[in-house]
Amino acid sequence: MKLLQWHCEYFKYKATKLALKTELEPASEGSFENVVVLLVCVEKGDIAETARNAIIAIKPNFDQVKAKQLLIYPYAHLSKNLATPSIALTILKEMENYAKEKGFEVYRAPFGWYKEFECKVYGHPLAELSKTIS
Amino acid sequence: MKLLQWHCEYFKYKATKLALKTELEPASEGSFENVVVLLVCVEKGDIAETARNAIIAIKPNFDQVKAKQLLIYPYAHLSKNLATPSIALTILKEMENYAKEKGFEVYRAPFGWYKEFECKVYGHPLAELSKTIS
Repeated sequence: MKLLQWHCEYFKYKATKLALKTELEPASEGSFENVVVLLVCVEKGDIAETARNAIIAIKPNFDQVKAKQLLIYPYAHLSKNLATPSIALTILKEMENYAKEKGFEVYRAPFGWYKEFECKVYGHPLAELSKTIS
Repeated sequence: MKLLQWHCEYFKYKATKLALKTELEPASEGSFENVVVLLVCVEKGDIAETARNAIIAIKPNFDQVKAKQLLIYPYAHLSKNLATPSIALTILKEMENYAKEKGFEVYRAPFGWYKEFECKVYGHPLAELSKTIS
């Protein structure tokens, strides 16, 4: 799993067009403030434990920057070694559920949609990070 | 070289804090409209030809989306196999110069700085792409 992690003053997205042949979940939109956006690329071989490890890995930074919300945002552009769509969605849901368990105010953008987004990413040294999770 | 390519309605950045021990170039800020932002991660082994190949690779998409401006934006978060800072800067400048030669209205964000950014990325299918260039 590849992650990009952004601490944003605000982040808004809107699903615009289906990107897969089959709709796995409906379009949606959202608007967030003081949010850590987790751009997530699920790779072949990722399992439920990978999903939980990702949430564990981002927690210290989330706390340190004093973010309020966590947005899980599917982002296929970080790897050439993608999981199948149905597995990717399962892993993303596992991340969401585990983050809820851990007390995050967590949201998830829909998988399989082209999305427009608008955001302001902070410029402090912990605002942008990347991680590989196994 | 790893690239992320965003077609943005607008993109603004501001260098906030030096990220390297040595300042390779001064801080700056910029504001752009109808811009393709090229988030560039220069990797070990990249040479001047890699820089030129990147510009050649993005040209068809740039034309297709009818963008007006090109912003070269250093982005270390796309690889673990980074070139040294001085080589990375040389390659980024080569990209800028070659894009100018090819008729792009091109800009370059400073290397070695933490930067805040604010943007709106379009939601059409060609708005977000990733590429590996060799």
